[in-house]
Amino acid sequence: MNKPLEYGATIGILGGGQLGRMLSVAASRLGFKSHIFDPAPSPPASDVAHLCITASFEDNDALIAFAKAVDVITYEFENIPAFALNIIKNYAPVRPDQEALRVSQDRLIEKNFLSSLRLKTAPYADTPDFATLLAQLNIIGEPAILKTRRFGYDGKGQYQIRERSDAEKAFNDLKHAPTILEGFVDFSHEISVIAARGTDGSVACFDPGENVHKDGILRSTTLPARLSADQRTDAILTAACILNSLDFVGVMGVEMFVTPQGLIVNEIAPRVHNSGHWTQNGCIIDQFEQHIRAIVGWPLGDGQRHSDIIMENLIGDDILRLPEIACEPNSAVHLYGKVEALPGRKMGHVNRKIS
Amino acid sequence: MNKPLEYGATIGILGGGQLGRMLSVAASRLGFKSHIFDPAPSPPASDVAHLCITASFEDNDALIAFAKAVDVITYEFENIPAFALNIIKNYAPVRPDQEALRVSQDRLIEKNFLSSLRLKTAPYADTPDFATLLAQLNIIGEPAILKTRRFGYDGKGQYQIRERSDAEKAFNDLKHAPTILEGFVDFSHEISVIAARGTDGSVACFDPGENVHKDGILRSTTLPARLSADQRTDAILTAACILNSLDFVGVMGVEMFVTPQGLIVNEIAPRVHNSGHWTQNGCIIDQFEQHIRAIVGWPLGDGQRHSDIIMENLIGDDILRLPEIACEPNSAVHLYGKVEALPGRKMGHVNRKIS
Repeated sequence: MNKPLEYGATIGILGGGQLGRMLSVAASRLGFKSHIFDPAPSPPASDVAHLCITASFEDNDALIAFAKAVDVITYEFENIPAFALNIIKNYAPVRPDQEALRVSQDRLIEKNFLSSLRLKTAPYADTPDFATLLAQLNIIGEPAILKTRRFGYDGKGQYQIRERSDAEKAFNDLKHAPTILEGFVDFSHEISVIAARGTDGSVACFDPGENVHKDGILRSTTLPARLSADQRTDAILTAACILNSLDFVGVMGVEMFVTPQGLIVNEIAPRVHNSGHWTQNGCIIDQFEQHIRAIVGWPLGDGQRHSDIIMENLIGDDILRLPEIACEPNSAVHLYGKVEALPGRKMGHVNRKIS
Repeated sequence: MNKPLEYGATIGILGGGQLGRMLSVAASRLGFKSHIFDPAPSPPASDVAHLCITASFEDNDALIAFAKAVDVITYEFENIPAFALNIIKNYAPVRPDQEALRVSQDRLIEKNFLSSLRLKTAPYADTPDFATLLAQLNIIGEPAILKTRRFGYDGKGQYQIRERSDAEKAFNDLKHAPTILEGFVDFSHEISVIAARGTDGSVACFDPGENVHKDGILRSTTLPARLSADQRTDAILTAACILNSLDFVGVMGVEMFVTPQGLIVNEIAPRVHNSGHWTQNGCIIDQFEQHIRAIVGWPLGDGQRHSDIIMENLIGDDILRLPEIACEPNSAVHLYGKVEALPGRKMGHVNRKIS
C-alpha cells in the first residue's frame, strides 16, 4: 500500500462541474485542499475550492503549473484528452489511472474489455463503414442503437435504428466520428453499483440502486433496487471484478441491466456517478468521500446503507419547484450553484429518505 | 416572512474557523456562495469559500467592501465588535441580529435576560469591585466561579473560588475586565439544545445532546441525552422561549444543566455550536444547513434524528490517532484543515453512529 497523503495535502481535480464540487467538499471534510482545473470560468466547484484554474486542456503551461502544485490528481469526467494526461502524470499520480480512462473513453474498447472478463454485455459490433453497419444489422437485428464510440453522455451521440431504413440517416448523422452498433437488451430495470477500490486493493461497494432514465438522462435512483439476493451478489461481484482487473483506484459507477438471463453490464464510468448521489443521505460515508479516501491512500470508509432513499435529479426547469421541495420533510436538497436553468441541465438533486 | 434570498446569492460569514468552514459547505449545498471575513490569513473556511477577505475588524473600508458584496451577513462567533456591526448592518441584514449578540456577548446581560424570562440560571452577581465580590461570596457561598463578563470561551477567563482565600487572587488576575460571580450548580450532567428559528418565526429544535467537558473544553456529545420525557420537553420549550424572546433568526446553542430541581440554563451561543456537530451524521439536515436556511429565509429543514451518535472532538494531539480513526466502522471524521496541532486546539471531530 502506498503511504497515504499527508493531512493538509492538495488534491487536483480536472473538471469543476457538480461532481468536482461535491468531491471538493468531501476533500475538505478529510482536511485536504482542492485545486480545480476547468476551461470554463467560475464552474460550480470554484465556490468550494482552495483554487480554481481557468485554462484549456491544451494549455501545457497551465497543466504543468496545476500538476506541480498538487499531490494527487483525479477527475470528474472520463473524456480527459490523452495529451493532457501525458503531461500532468509526470508531476503527480493520476488516480484512477490512464488505463481506466483508455477503457472507459471508448465504447468499443470498453465492450471488448468487459467481454474479455466474460461479463455479459449487449450484442455489439464495430461499424467503421456503412457496409459493415448493414452487415452487422443483419446479425444483431433491429431495433438497435448506433452510438459514437467516444464523447457520448446523457443520451447524446446516439441514434435508434428501429427499422433497417433508419440506418442510413443514423450513419450519416454520426459519420464524423467512429461508431459502434449495439443491440437492444430486453431488461426489466437498470441498476448501478458504485464501487470503490483503495490503493491497498481493498474493494467496497455501495448497495445497488435502481435507475430511471428519461430522454437519455438519469431521473431517479431508488434504494434498495429490486434484486434477488443472488442478483445482488452478482452485481457486487461483477463490479469488483471490473475494478480488480483494472487495478483501479477510486470510485467507479457500473450500470447494469437486469434481465431474466442475468445481469448485463451497460457501461462503466471511472468516477463518482450521478446514480451514487443517494449515498450523501443514505450512508455515513458517501461516494465523494469514498473516492477521496481511495485516491489519497486512506482506508476505504464504511459505506453501509442506513436508510432507504429515492434520489431525484432536478433538471432544467425542475428547479422552479424548489420552494415546495425546500419544505418537504425527510428530504435533503443539493444544488450546484449553476446560474442558468437550461433544458436538460442538471441543476441539483433531492435525496428523499423513505424509511 | 421576508422574501427568501435568490438562488445563487452570496452569504457573508464573519470568522473563518471550523464553524465558518462548515457553514460555507452547507451554503454551497443550497446553491449559495460564501464570502469569509477573517483577520487571520488562510483560515479553515478559506478552503471552501468563494472568496476570503483577510482584514481587521477595525478596517472600515474592508468591512464596507465585504458587506456591499453580500446579500446577508452571519457569523461563527459572538464576539463581533459592536463598531464593526454598526458599519456592516447598513449594507446587508445581519442574522442573527445585534440584539442576540448584545445579550450573548456579556454573561451578566445574558443572565439578566434569562432571569427576565423566568428561566433558572446559576446564582450570579455582578462584581464591579472586590468589596462587592466578598459581599456576594457571603450570599452565593463557595465554591463559586469568577468569570469575565466578556470574551471567555473554552474555559478561558474563569477562576474557581474554592475557599474565600482564593477570591483575592481570582479578582486580581481578572481585574483588567468586568467580572461576574457564579455559584456552583450541583448537576448530574449537561445537555445542549441546538435550536433554529426562521424569518417566519417557526422554531425547530434538534434532539438534546449530552455533553462531557474536560479542562473547560467540550470533549463529546452523546445522542440521545439521558433525559426523562418531561425534561426533554422542558429543554425544547426553554430553548424555544429564548429564541422567540429575542426574535432570533438562525441557529442557537443552549447549554443546560440537569439537576433534581429541573433544568438550569448555563449559557447561550447565537450561532452553530460544537455540541451540534453530531447532526451532520445523525439527521438529514444538519445544524449548518439549518442555520443557512434560517438566515436566507428558507423554510427550516427536517432535523429529526435518524441515528444515535457520539461526537468526539479531536483536540491537539488527538489528531495523531487519525490512522486508527480512519479505519473505524460506522464513523465519519470531519477535519478542519488546521496545520498546527497546538494543545487545546480543535482539529476535527468524529461522529460515531452507535445505533
